[in-house]
Order: sequence, then structure tokens, then C-alpha cells
Amino acid sequence: TEIARPSGICTMMRLPYQETAEGLGAAFIGVPLDTGTSNRPGARFGPRHIRGESSMVRRYNNSTRAAPFESLMVADIGDVNVNLYDLKDSCRRIREAYQKIVRTGCVPLTLGGDHTITYPILQAVAEKYGPVGLVHIDAHTDTGDTALGEKIYHGTPFRRCVDEGLLDCKRVVQIGIRGSSYTSDPYDFCREQGFRMVLAEDCWFKSLVPLMAEIRLQMGDKPVYISFDIDGIDPSFAPGTGTPEVAGLTTGQALEIIRGCRGLNIVGCDLVEVAPIYDQSGNTALTAANLLFEMLCVLPNVKIYE
Amino acid sequence: TEIARPSGICTMMRLPYQETAEGLGAAFIGVPLDTGTSNRPGARFGPRHIRGESSMVRRYNNSTRAAPFESLMVADIGDVNVNLYDLKDSCRRIREAYQKIVRTGCVPLTLGGDHTITYPILQAVAEKYGPVGLVHIDAHTDTGDTALGEKIYHGTPFRRCVDEGLLDCKRVVQIGIRGSSYTSDPYDFCREQGFRMVLAEDCWFKSLVPLMAEIRLQMGDKPVYISFDIDGIDPSFAPGTGTPEVAGLTTGQALEIIRGCRGLNIVGCDLVEVAPIYDQSGNTALTAANLLFEMLCVLPNVKIYE
Amino acid sequence: TEIARPSGICTMMRLPYQETAEGLGAAFIGVPLDTGTSNRPGARFGPRHIRGESSMVRRYNNSTRAAPFESLMVADIGDVNVNLYDLKDSCRRIREAYQKIVRTGCVPLTLGGDHTITYPILQAVAEKYGPVGLVHIDAHTDTGDTALGEKIYHGTPFRRCVDEGLLDCKRVVQIGIRGSSYTSDPYDFCREQGFRMVLAEDCWFKSLVPLMAEIRLQMGDKPVYISFDIDGIDPSFAPGTGTPEVAGLTTGQALEIIRGCRGLNIVGCDLVEVAPIYDQSGNTALTAANLLFEMLCVLPNVKIYE
Amino acid sequence: TEIARPSGICTMMRLPYQETAEGLGAAFIGVPLDTGTSNRPGARFGPRHIRGESSMVRRYNNSTRAAPFESLMVADIGDVNVNLYDLKDSCRRIREAYQKIVRTGCVPLTLGGDHTITYPILQAVAEKYGPVGLVHIDAHTDTGDTALGEKIYHGTPFRRCVDEGLLDCKRVVQIGIRGSSYTSDPYDFCREQGFRMVLAEDCWFKSLVPLMAEIRLQMGDKPVYISFDIDGIDPSFAPGTGTPEVAGLTTGQALEIIRGCRGLNIVGCDLVEVAPIYDQSGNTALTAANLLFEMLCVLPNVKIYE
Amino acid sequence: TEIARPSGICTMMRLPYQETAEGLGAAFIGVPLDTGTSNRPGARFGPRHIRGESSMVRRYNNSTRAAPFESLMVADIGDVNVNLYDLKDSCRRIREAYQKIVRTGCVPLTLGGDHTITYPILQAVAEKYGPVGLVHIDAHTDTGDTALGEKIYHGTPFRRCVDEGLLDCKRVVQIGIRGSSYTSDPYDFCREQGFRMVLAEDCWFKSLVPLMAEIRLQMGDKPVYISFDIDGIDPSFAPGTGTPEVAGLTTGQALEIIRGCRGLNIVGCDLVEVAPIYDQSGNTALTAANLLFEMLCVLPNVKIYE
Amino acid sequence: TEIARPSGICTMMRLPYQETAEGLGAAFIGVPLDTGTSNRPGARFGPRHIRGESSMVRRYNNSTRAAPFESLMVADIGDVNVNLYDLKDSCRRIREAYQKIVRTGCVPLTLGGDHTITYPILQAVAEKYGPVGLVHIDAHTDTGDTALGEKIYHGTPFRRCVDEGLLDCKRVVQIGIRGSSYTSDPYDFCREQGFRMVLAEDCWFKSLVPLMAEIRLQMGDKPVYISFDIDGIDPSFAPGTGTPEVAGLTTGQALEIIRGCRGLNIVGCDLVEVAPIYDQSGNTALTAANLLFEMLCVLPNVKIYE
Ligand SMILES: [Mn+2]
Ligand SMILES: [Mn+2]
Ligand SMILES: [Mn+2]
Ligand SMILES: [Mn+2]
Ligand SMILES: [Mn+2]
Ligand SMILES: [Mn+2]
Ligand SMILES: [Mn+2]
Ligand SMILES: [Mn+2]
Ligand SMILES: [Mn+2]
Ligand SMILES: [Mn+2]
Ligand SMILES: [Mn+2]
Ligand SMILES: [Mn+2]
Repeated sequence: TEIARPSGICTMMRLPYQETAEGLGAAFIGVPLDTGTSNRPGARFGPRHIRGESSMVRRYNNSTRAAPFESLMVADIGDVNVNLYDLKDSCRRIREAYQKIVRTGCVPLTLGGDHTITYPILQAVAEKYGPVGLVHIDAHTDTGDTALGEKIYHGTPFRRCVDEGLLDCKRVVQIGIRGSSYTSDPYDFCREQGFRMVLAEDCWFKSLVPLMAEIRLQMGDKPVYISFDIDGIDPSFAPGTGTPEVAGLTTGQALEIIRGCRGLNIVGCDLVEVAPIYDQSGNTALTAANLLFEMLCVLPNVKIYE
Repeated sequence: TEIARPSGICTMMRLPYQETAEGLGAAFIGVPLDTGTSNRPGARFGPRHIRGESSMVRRYNNSTRAAPFESLMVADIGDVNVNLYDLKDSCRRIREAYQKIVRTGCVPLTLGGDHTITYPILQAVAEKYGPVGLVHIDAHTDTGDTALGEKIYHGTPFRRCVDEGLLDCKRVVQIGIRGSSYTSDPYDFCREQGFRMVLAEDCWFKSLVPLMAEIRLQMGDKPVYISFDIDGIDPSFAPGTGTPEVAGLTTGQALEIIRGCRGLNIVGCDLVEVAPIYDQSGNTALTAANLLFEMLCVLPNVKIYE
Repeated sequence: TEIARPSGICTMMRLPYQETAEGLGAAFIGVPLDTGTSNRPGARFGPRHIRGESSMVRRYNNSTRAAPFESLMVADIGDVNVNLYDLKDSCRRIREAYQKIVRTGCVPLTLGGDHTITYPILQAVAEKYGPVGLVHIDAHTDTGDTALGEKIYHGTPFRRCVDEGLLDCKRVVQIGIRGSSYTSDPYDFCREQGFRMVLAEDCWFKSLVPLMAEIRLQMGDKPVYISFDIDGIDPSFAPGTGTPEVAGLTTGQALEIIRGCRGLNIVGCDLVEVAPIYDQSGNTALTAANLLFEMLCVLPNVKIYE
Repeated sequence: TEIARPSGICTMMRLPYQETAEGLGAAFIGVPLDTGTSNRPGARFGPRHIRGESSMVRRYNNSTRAAPFESLMVADIGDVNVNLYDLKDSCRRIREAYQKIVRTGCVPLTLGGDHTITYPILQAVAEKYGPVGLVHIDAHTDTGDTALGEKIYHGTPFRRCVDEGLLDCKRVVQIGIRGSSYTSDPYDFCREQGFRMVLAEDCWFKSLVPLMAEIRLQMGDKPVYISFDIDGIDPSFAPGTGTPEVAGLTTGQALEIIRGCRGLNIVGCDLVEVAPIYDQSGNTALTAANLLFEMLCVLPNVKIYE
Repeated sequence: TEIARPSGICTMMRLPYQETAEGLGAAFIGVPLDTGTSNRPGARFGPRHIRGESSMVRRYNNSTRAAPFESLMVADIGDVNVNLYDLKDSCRRIREAYQKIVRTGCVPLTLGGDHTITYPILQAVAEKYGPVGLVHIDAHTDTGDTALGEKIYHGTPFRRCVDEGLLDCKRVVQIGIRGSSYTSDPYDFCREQGFRMVLAEDCWFKSLVPLMAEIRLQMGDKPVYISFDIDGIDPSFAPGTGTPEVAGLTTGQALEIIRGCRGLNIVGCDLVEVAPIYDQSGNTALTAANLLFEMLCVLPNVKIYE
Repeated sequence: TEIARPSGICTMMRLPYQETAEGLGAAFIGVPLDTGTSNRPGARFGPRHIRGESSMVRRYNNSTRAAPFESLMVADIGDVNVNLYDLKDSCRRIREAYQKIVRTGCVPLTLGGDHTITYPILQAVAEKYGPVGLVHIDAHTDTGDTALGEKIYHGTPFRRCVDEGLLDCKRVVQIGIRGSSYTSDPYDFCREQGFRMVLAEDCWFKSLVPLMAEIRLQMGDKPVYISFDIDGIDPSFAPGTGTPEVAGLTTGQALEIIRGCRGLNIVGCDLVEVAPIYDQSGNTALTAANLLFEMLCVLPNVKIYE
């Protein structure tokens, strides 16, 4: 029955809520944590606001003709109960929660939270699938080693993943990278691992459809994880984020990237770094809700109308 | 198990969600409608934001020693599915939804929505309980006859209730009334019905505890409904509302009013007119969440620790 | 005499106010209604805020060399006195108000208001001019049949216009269409009518000057109406709107579309769906004011400097 | 005919606009200037936003039973055309504009603008009426001598008035004074002139009705001017102002002060220092609109219903 | 030389900056940490915004005639370099930083930061002065034992202080306490320690001058620390905070409390929990700046003009 | 030592503060003035907020491989002490302050402030270097003659510079020009002087790298000044400005312009017209901080890593 947009308890897209991933093809799940952020906090409220704005998103993808709910069982399974006062303990809690999810075969679609959370998520994902390919959209490489003496915060998740062998490094691409840096070659580490780096400058003024054709080749048919930091997109589209960098991707390019992942063997996705209080209109969370829906639409086995 | 405040699907106070009022002593329910408002809209998002901010409200009332959840089954039963495009049809939908609720004996605690909604709610309530006493906190009497040619909008609900005999007029009190008016005696109608009117001016600078002793006498032991328009409170405390009037009640006085209703035979309550977009901090919705919790705490049979 | 920008009563562009369209070549008019909106309200304050921000717009169009005030009598004729509490009655009021305006031969330039209003406006316009061509910029086709059981709201105006034969369907173009949908082919209806649909995806990264050449051919020299929903533009440019969709048109493309209408037989224009409270800076209203000025500049008989 | 609140060109209270004060008993007039402010600017948009929010104010004063429009001709006469780039020249423009107004016998009710403007207004007022009594509500005495080398800015208007003999110093009262200062006795000057000073501290927690009885005696029946700096009120009620000071008056007290002026020979009034951009909800401008209406209601010869 | 308010590098009150407390009678110091907060983050930017708004605060205290800068050397000594990613390590860093400060005999005036920081500050303070008396203004007792499994966060600092013997428990007062709670007697712990608790309810509508006379007796002449959580004040005055509770103290009462501490042997002060992003106007930070100045004005040996 | 982003006194990029330019290769300096603005004020707080957000900018330029701090001594030298109440006197103060700076050979990088300030800055710069080339990014030509009777405000600085021979007119380029105008050929003056004008329309949808190659030829090796009005950029990227115009440059283009100036003989730079209160997220100030860093990176003699 048709429901007015302002109406109803806010689960993601007002899907049914269930406590576990049991029986689901894909699950939306929140990780309301922001104590890994280096600048503006607020991403702890990302899941709440993404769910709120997701009432604008309808069930059928007009542009790609994907009808995810006709082929997959999908629910909102709530939030990981993070420990706001201990970032490392939160990482443990996240890892354990995701271990349970991935064991069921369900594909998790995560509403972040700051980018720190991708590290324990990938611990769980790689435990099941082995080292994964990674499509990483971000202004930052997030491959720092330490900050303020700490190895775990939102600038280091992919360094930690490399340390632990969670990534299939030849199948990693980072798109939208830009901004100033602390060292004269911040990208050395990434290049040494064999990551493909696509700088934001190389994306300006043009379609990324050709890029995505190359990336599909790079990824092949082995497991792939999509990690989308909303700051990969330009802050004009997504002002509500903690460490914005000027001159990023457009939302059109964001859609091209995600839609370009269709056909890949996607085993998990996240959308992180939405800090709603910095976005009076709510449109950053709305953008995030749309991007998560688009990710759902490119999961394996989603029905596509011809 | 203890859960971080930013975590979890936002029901009211993160209570369990259930679809009907069956088996409940009290139920929180939203009415996300604002098309009866004469000035700033936005109260359609009142329920969503009150639920969001309600994660700050804990289970025990420190000041009154009430422990509502130890004595009453309480849940969030979601929102009435209003018709945003036809106010009169929405009234019908609301009335029918509340008829089902009150039939079960459950006390509804409503998250508005503009004040229009109290009219169909009282139709349902009076159908079960007969004409009710009313504790009405508001800057406005809401007893207009028509506006822009219409008999139903947020300025007329209590006139319509009088028309239909839903109120026990000698047991009506209106507190916080103020502001300019269209006619030289806007209060004639109320006085003719025998309502007690307590102007905001008569509340300035002082405790309302003595007033409430008188009102408890006025109400006696017959059924009483509490209708709390957030604009009864001064806009400094509650900026997020549609038709604010200067020089209103304090939140301390609001607590005194609600706590002063303890012992009354309360059969329903609402908190209306929260328009969150006019309140950047979220504190209007937070205030509303607290006031709804206080209403719950004065319902009949709630356990009070000595 | 030169006046400081913050100074003066806010009519559109601080033009003279007059009560009727009598004697005018073109008139700005507001329709402060938003009760047809399906999500965020607030467009009722569109006219007020567009007028406020229009003090930035000067009289001569630098880019196109149009000098509209040298060739046309233009005034602000105030707002239609809508019925906020009954959407269908508002439609009647709007239709009657526009019948009076178009009878004088004046071209109305409307400050909305939600998109529902275009339906009664086109009733009046088509009554005078017969079925019109339509240049419709929007994220949405607005050709739904019903919602929440209603035939009239901001998602259906052009369906209703087709029902009543108000459009010359071969001369309809919709530009900027995007977003998710309820059904697997939401565009069937439009295509069946013969509308030309230009998806947002087909506009990304490029100039729309070539498109507009085609559209001028499509429109020919018969009467044309321009209906501009601000959500056709990307929400980064126009955050203050009720049903934003990601990845829309740029403001540069918006200017290309309007400027590309020069030479057409334009008989009316509107700019709808500005919801100012969602736009802290005021720039959405400012954009709207500029677009309305650009529409004025392409009206027939406007003087162009060589 | 009844008009919806969001509708219509925004004059003050949607009164008729006329270009001069000719024939009026009282006139609302804006002075959109803020280049005399020492901290946050924005009061240049005070008149625009006060007019916008004034659509909430109805014609009859419920609390005092005043019906100003039944006894006085009142209109909005627009704004003084200030020179934003030269404060001293703006003072000249203001003085000349007010000379024309007061010559007609009309009482000006001014929408500021920063407090600098009261100096040239009083030049014009005193030219007609001789030195006037002053009821000055403010956090600041505004009797500084110079700042940054300048004699004219919003911290000095009443010093300049004393210099020029525009005030009847025994009939001056300043209410709400508070805050830190540059010198160890900032009030010496005021006391030396014989001003009565009522510190904010002396107003906390209590009604100002008794104070106003004394002030009516102080003022007698000679001409009185009311100058109300919105920062006299506490910033919780009026956040949108340029130089807020903590712990000010309540809006209830503000109403008591203005209502307590009934019976005085009031020859002019202003409400200054509303800086709307610092007030997301619009409630500061709404408060200002109400206070201006209350000032109108206490003008000589306003009809009071018994 | 006189400087315009918007001008200059923002130290507290634009005092000189120096790196250490050497040679100072009192020092302003920031602790930009908010990872101990249980709800809305943002207090990490408290020091930056308090410094920004402090340009409104002048050097002489008009109300109390205190001239702190004539008797004490005061500077801004910058911020503690906290570890945003490990709360416990931040506590260590804070403690060590304050050990250095208090060793010099300088009185630290802290710009928080969430309330967690008072625990390591008091470790340093008590190390020098022995167990201290405490004047604690707050909505919350902050004497919880654990949350989410952790002993250190902003709800437990004073429990930890009691655990370590840092407080002279008979000389502790908590003012402004209110709000719901998790347990049926949350105040047991405080009462068992002998703390005096002054509930917000007991402060409504009245002056706290008499209370402060009693508290001065309670404190005697031994060392006292003032810890001021901005949420002790009502959220109408201070919306920009993380865990607001309705119906708190007024800013007038806040001034009475601080001014009532004159004559006590104050050895340190803090103002915590300002989360600027939740306060569009900046007035919460402005209030904090004023309260910190008032604390400075009641330090021992500050010159008071008669 | 590594410092958390929220920590520390906010100088530009948290550089050392020193009082004069003595010994510096380049200096950041603020001019907190906005009384030359014709519409929305607030740029007086530009320097404060740009400094605040500059904590996001790191020391090495990743994209261009510039390492400015390895080759130049750079500091923040605070703000010019402007006279807020007299624009002409402020111009004198600015000119004198910059005369001192440029005499030392230091290159000033200015944080504005409205665009008026570039006039007195160029008086000082040209006094030392003779008439300079100008790379001027702006929506407006700023070559008006007078407004409201005044020759000095933010619409005239470059007209005044031409009047006084401060510009080498064949080496002037203006990029991003757009918007409506008062006269039918507002660009006549610029063209008569020989300025190159690059309209925003000519920049849409494409890279400006080719343009910059031409501009480097135009500028040659003689002294060049870069004046960057943030409103040259589209308001979607930079909403916090006083006179926004739709359809401007992207931030990517802004970076291309500045980076395209590498190799020129740059003797000074400014970034003006950031009005932070119109930008809730702070991203306009963040963009400004990045652009100023990019200007620093193209100064002569800055080390570039290969
Ligand atoms: Mn990231
Ligand atoms: Mn990132
Ligand atoms: Mn009401
Ligand atoms: Mn009301
Ligand atoms: Mn539409
Ligand atoms: Mn649309
Ligand atoms: Mn003043
Ligand atoms: Mn003042
Ligand atoms: Mn606390
Ligand atoms: Mn607290
Ligand atoms: Mn400029
Ligand atoms: Mn400009």
C-alpha cells in the first residue's frame, strides 16, 4: 500500500527491519561511528539521516532498468552497536558483526560512519572470500601509516588491509584522489602495492564510462568490494562530510562509477563519511541514499528489464 | 543491552515497533501531516525528528520518580498513513486509525503533525469515552470558525469539537494563550463555552504548580485529554514551529503543567506543531520528545517510586 | 534613481506593483502554494524569497543583449490568493486568476509554488491559445496518474493536461528527467503521447545548444509554454527544493535552455518548487530570480541590442 | 478579503504602501543600513525580514484591547535610500527623509538597521518637537564617544544626541544595560547627564510593571521617543543581532515596557539591530514585528476597547 | 591600540599567546576533544569558536567592577595536543599538560572539549593542591560508573575523581541537575559521597544569590575548582551542546553562580561541552566566552573597583 | 610535531604568527572589511573563517609537486586594522599597511574582505613594482565608475586602478565574467583599456589549461598580481559570498587558472569576498584556504619536486 513520504519508521528505503541477515540476499546495515575522523565529526549520525532521506528513493531504477527487489531478499538489519569511547574496541565489534553477516552469504551494504569502519568490515569479508578487489572512491587514499601516534583512524584503513593481506592489490582502484598532503610522495605506497590511482584531475569535465570499462577488466570475475567515501564527490554536491577537498567528482560521475560495476562479483559495499549536521538541506544524506540504492542495483543476480 | 545513542532504528525512545495497539497500555503514534498549517509548514516531519531526538530520553523519570515501563506495555506503532493532498480525507484516515487504537483500551500518545489532527483524534476518543475534559497548552485558542473559506485547518480543531459535542466544556482549560488577533474579542467563543483561559501574561515569572492544583479540581476524575501545541512554549525554547508567538511559557512551566496532571484520568495525549526544519539544532524535537515522555509518566497506573 | 540593494519593498526586481495585468506585456505573479508536494514542503514561500533575492538582478541582459524593459511593460501583480487548506479549490482559484491575466494578452511569468499549479495555469492558457507546446525542465515527468488516491498533486499536472487536451503533445519536450521510479516503465505514458524526453544522463558534461536548435524546430511558431521545475537543476546549485534528485542539469545548461527558446512564440512561463527554508544561503531563490529574468528576456518582441 | 499568510507583497503587516507620509497618523519605514555595526553585520536586511515575518501579526491587540487601525491611518512608506558606502552621508540622507516625515505630523515607526540611525532620526524629531524624552531599551548605553577614531557608529548615537541637545536628559531611561566594558566606569557619562539606568541584573526574574509606573511619571506629558535595540532582549529570544550580550530581558518584559508606555506623548519609535542571517528560524524578525506592532498600539489616540 | 572586533588572530579575548604558563597568574587553554561524548559530537571545535566569539568581550567587568587584567598576568597558551583516536591516551596527554601548568602556580581556565577532560585536569590539580572543593554546574551529575563497557567518557569524570580521592566530597556542589535517567536512583552515589545537589527544578523562577551564600560557607577557604558544563544552562540560551536537557538554568543564574564564587580560593576553572555546529548564530560560544571571563573575574587577588 | 586538526590557535595553515613581514618571502595577511559590499555583508569575517578552515590544508601540493615551505619563509602577519565606519579611511590604512609589506620584498597573500581592498593594495604594489599585470577571476568586472554617488566600493576597484595608472592594461585578463548589468554595454570600458575578457559562458564544460597558456604569453615576465574574487566560482561551490551570480567557474577550473600562473612573476595575490555566515558548512572558507595555498605554490622560486 502506498505511503506518504514523510510517513513511517525510517528504515533504509522503509524496508522491513530484521535483526539478523538470515535469509537475505543483501542487507543494509549502519555503523554509527565517527571517532576515527581527523577533522569534523558527525558521521555517527550518517545512518540515521541516510535512512531518513531514503524515503525519496523508489524501488525501480529507471536509468539502468534494474529491479533489485524482484530478485533479491533485502532488509534493513539495523546498526552495529559500536563503542563510542574506544575506537579499537569498535573495530572488534564491527568485525564480529560482519563475520556473522557474511557467513550467511548475504551482501552487506553499509551506511557509515567514518572510513575507519571499512578496515574491520574487510577483515570479515576477506575471511570469507579471501583477498578482494577494491573499487575505492575517495578524495584520499586512506593509506597513511599512523596519525597522532595511532595506527587506526579514518586515514589508514587500506594500509591496515594491505598489512593483513585483505586486498588483492592488483585489483584495487582508487578514484577521485586529490588534495594537499603531508609528504612529497603520498602515493608511493599505493603505487608500490600496484593499486591503480585515478586522480580527480584526470576526471574533470568528462564521462567515466571509458574508465569503468578498463576497471571491469582489472577486476575480472573474482570478489570485489566497493568502498565509497562521500568526499570523493565534490563538496558542492556533498557538503556534509568531515574532511572535504575541493574539485572532486560530480554525482553524475559517481553514478557512472557504480553503474559501471555491473557484472562484477560484488561481495560488499559501503558508503561512508556522511556528516549530516554540516548539510542543512539534507541533500548529502539523500545523495548517499541514492548511491547505496545504485550499489544494490549492480549486485550479482539483480533482475534487469530489457 | 546498552546501546550507543546514535545507534539503532529510530522508533520513539527506541521502543519496539508493532503494527497495532493490541496488547498495549500506551502507544506512541505519529501523524505526519502539516497541510492544515496557516504559515510555515514542516510539521509533517515532526514525528521523524521527535523519534530521532528521543534517543536522549532515558527510561526513568528522575524528577517525578515515575517508572512507566515497569507498569505499562508501551510500543511505537508507527504513523497514520495520511493523505497529504486532501486535508479532509486525512481527517477521516486519522479518525479511523484512532478508532482502532482506542477500542483496544490503549492510550495514544501522538507525535504531530499540525494541530488539525486533534479534531479527528478527539472524534475517536469521544466515541469511546464520551465528551472529554481537555488540558490544552497553546499560544492560540484554535477555536476559529473558518479561514480562507474552510472549516478545517489548524486554527479550528476545538471549535469543531465543540460543534460535535466532543468536549465536556466545563472541564476545558487553555494555557499559554497570547498574540494578536483578527477580531476584537477572539476569546468570546471560549468563554461562552465555559472554558477556563489562562493567558500567557498570567504565567510570566512564576510557577504554575498552584494553577495545576486548581485544574485538577476542575478536571475531577472523568476522562481527560492533553493536547500540547509546542507553540504554547516560548519560541526561544521551541523555535521549530509554524506559527510562533512571542512571550510564551517556559519549558519549566510546561513540565509543571504535565506533571500537575498526575492523578487525572488521562485517555489520550498529543504533542503537535513541531516543524523541525526551522530548528537547526534539533532541540525543538528534543523538547517534544521529553514532553511526550512526561505525558507517559502521568498516565493512570504508572508506577511511582517513593 | 539608484537604490541600494537591501532597500525597498520586495517586488520582483523591485518593479512597480499593480493589482491587475491590464496594460502589461508581461507580468510576474506569485502562487504561494505547496500543499501538492509529496516530500519537503516550503514552496509556499518561494515567491517571497525569489522577490527578496531578485534585488541582485539588473535590468539588462549582458550575455544575450536583451533589454526587456525597453520594449515591454512589465510589473509585479502580486500573488494569487490560494486556499492553503484545499488543493482542489486552490486550483480553481489559480485558474480563474490566470483567465483574467491571459485575457488581457499579458504573458504571465509565475513564481511558484509547487508544480501542481501549472495544471490550472495551463487550463487558463490553453483556453485562450488552444493546446500549447511545452518546454518542461524537471527531474520528474510529472505525468503520474494518482498518488495516495488523489489525481491532483505535484506529480500529475501534465497527465491532467493531457487528459484535458491542453498540450500539443508532439510539441512537448521534457529535459533533465532522472531518478528512481515506482514502476518499471514510468516513461511509457510520455512516449505514448509523443513527448520528447531528454534524460539528465544525456545532458551530462556537455552544452545543450545543439539540443535547443532541435527543440526550436519541434516547437515551430505556435504557442509555447515554459515550465521550469527548479529540481531539473542539480541540487548542488538549487538545494532549496522539495523532491531533489541527484545528478541533474547545471545552471549553465539551464541558461542554454532558456536562451535557446528565443524566437519561440512563448505565451507563458513558470519557475516552480523553490523551498527556501532548505537553502540557508538564499542562492536557490537567487537562481530562480535569474531564470525568471532570462525567461522574460526571450519573450516575443523583446529588444535585442546588436 | 482574507489572505493566506504566505501570500502577497511584503509590506509591514501587508499594509498599503505609499511613497510619502502625507495623510498618515503613523508610518512604518525601513532604514536598511548596517555599516555602523562594530561586530556582526546584517541589520541592512532587518527591514526586509521584519516585513516578511510581519504576516503573522494580526490587526487587533488581544492583550491590551488596542485597535490601532480603527483610529489611525497607517501605511508602509518603504525604505530610506541609504548610502551603503558612506556612513556619514547615510546619516544626512536619513535626517532629511525624517524631516519630511515628521513635518507632516506623522509618527514614524522605524525598522532598522543598526542603532547609528537613531541619531539622524532624533535630529529630525527634535527639530520639530524640541528635546525629547527617551525610553531606550538596549544591552548597551550607546553613549561612547569614539571608536576606531570615528564619532559616528552604533555605539555613540545617544552621545551625539546629547552633544546636540536633542534629548531632555532628565527624561531619559535606559533599560536592559549589561555586558563588559572598555573602561572602569562606562556609565559615568549617562549618570552625569541625569539619565536613569536600569541594569539587566535589576530586571531578572520579575515583572517590570512597577518600573514602568515610575517611568511614566519621569516622562510626564512631553514628547517621548522609544528606541528599542533588539539586543536589549536576551539572545535566546533574539539570536539574530550583531552585538549580543548574555542575560538580558525576556520578551515578556519587553512587552511590559512597551505596554507601560501607553499614555505617553510618543512622537516616534524604532526597532533596531535585527540581523536576520544569524537567526535561521526567522523568529528574531518575528519578535521585532510584534514589538513594532505593540509600539503602534500605544501611540496617542489609538482606540482601546473596554 | 583599538582594534576592530572582526580583526586579528583569535586568541581568547585577543590576549597575547605564549607557549607555556610560565609567569602567568591565569591562563586560558583549550582542550579540543569530543570523543567522550555520548550523543552529538562537535565540542572539539569549542575552543576555536569560543576564541572567535570572545572578541565581543571587553576587559572590564561592568557589573562586578572587576578589572582582572590590572592585577593578573593572563595569556592564552593554546591547546593541549589531544589524541583524537584514543580517549584514554588523550586523558594522559591532558593530565601531563596540566601538571606543567599548575606547577607554575598559574590558574588554568579551560575551554572544552567534552566533560571527560575534567577528570585528567583534576588529577593534575589535586596532585598540587590535594582534594579540592568543586562547584559543578551541569544538567548531569557525571557520576556514572561505566557506559558501553567503558569507565572513561563524559558521563563519568566525577566518579573517577571520587575513585581517586581527588575531591573533598563535603565541599562538592552540583547545580542544575535534571533530566531522565537509566536507574531509579541515579543520585544515590552523589548523596552517599556527601555532595550537595541542587536540582534545576529548585532553581526555576528565582535568584540564586541566596544559594551562593550557602555555597561559600560550604566551600570555606580551601581550594575550589569550578567546572561549568554549558548544558547546565537551558538549551534556549546554549543550543550548541551535545546532550541538552530541557528546563535548565538561565544565563542570569549562571552569572549569579560564578559571581557568587568571589572570595573563594579558586585554583582552576573549566567551561565544557560547547558544540558550535549545533548553534548557527554562534551565541553558545559567545556565552561560553563571557562565562570564562566572569570566572577570571572572581579569581583570588583580582582587583575590584569600589 | 603532529597536531590534531581541531587544535591550536588559528593562524593561516597554523603557520607562525609574526607582526611584520620582515624576513619573509611571502606572508598571509587578512583585511577584515566588508563595508564596500553592495548586497550581503559578512566578508569582514572572511579572514577568521579562512584561517579556521585552513587546518585542513597540508604543506605539500600533491598535484603540482610544489613544496612552498621548503623554499620560502612564510608566516601569518595578522590583519590590517581597518576602520569599519569609514571606507575611505580604511583604504588609506590598507594602503599604508601594504606599503610596509611590499617594501620588504615580501609577497602578500591577502585574505579578504570585500573586493574594495584590492584598490589600496594595488596602490602599494604599483608604487613598488610599477603598473602590474592582473589575473582577475570574478563574476564581475569591478570597473564601475560610481554607485550611490560613491567612487569607492567593491564594484569599482579596477576602474580606480586604471584611473591611477596602477595596471599595465594590455596585461589584464578577467575570467568568469557574467550576470546581468545596469547598462547595455558594461564591458566597453574594459575593452577600451585593452583588457582581455573571458566570459563564464566561454568556460563552461571545458578545461582552462589552453586558456592559461595564452595568458602566460600575455603576461610575459613582468610583475603580475592575482586577484581572486570567490564569486568567480559558481555559488554551488562557494555559497558564502555577497553578490553571487549563477553559472560560474568550477573549482577545478579555479585550480587550473592558478596552477596555470606558475612561472609568472607574481608580486601579490588576494582571495576576496568570502562571507562565511552564508555558508553553513564552512566549505566556502575551506575552498578559499585551498586557493590561497595554491597561489603560494605558484610564487616565483617555490621548489617543485620532479
Ligand atoms: Mn576515506
Ligand atoms: Mn576521504
Ligand atoms: Mn494549536
Ligand atoms: Mn498554536
Ligand atoms: Mn515538477
Ligand atoms: Mn520535479
Ligand atoms: Mn544599541
Ligand atoms: Mn545594543
Ligand atoms: Mn557534564
Ligand atoms: Mn552535561
Ligand atoms: Mn569582485
Ligand atoms: Mn564579484
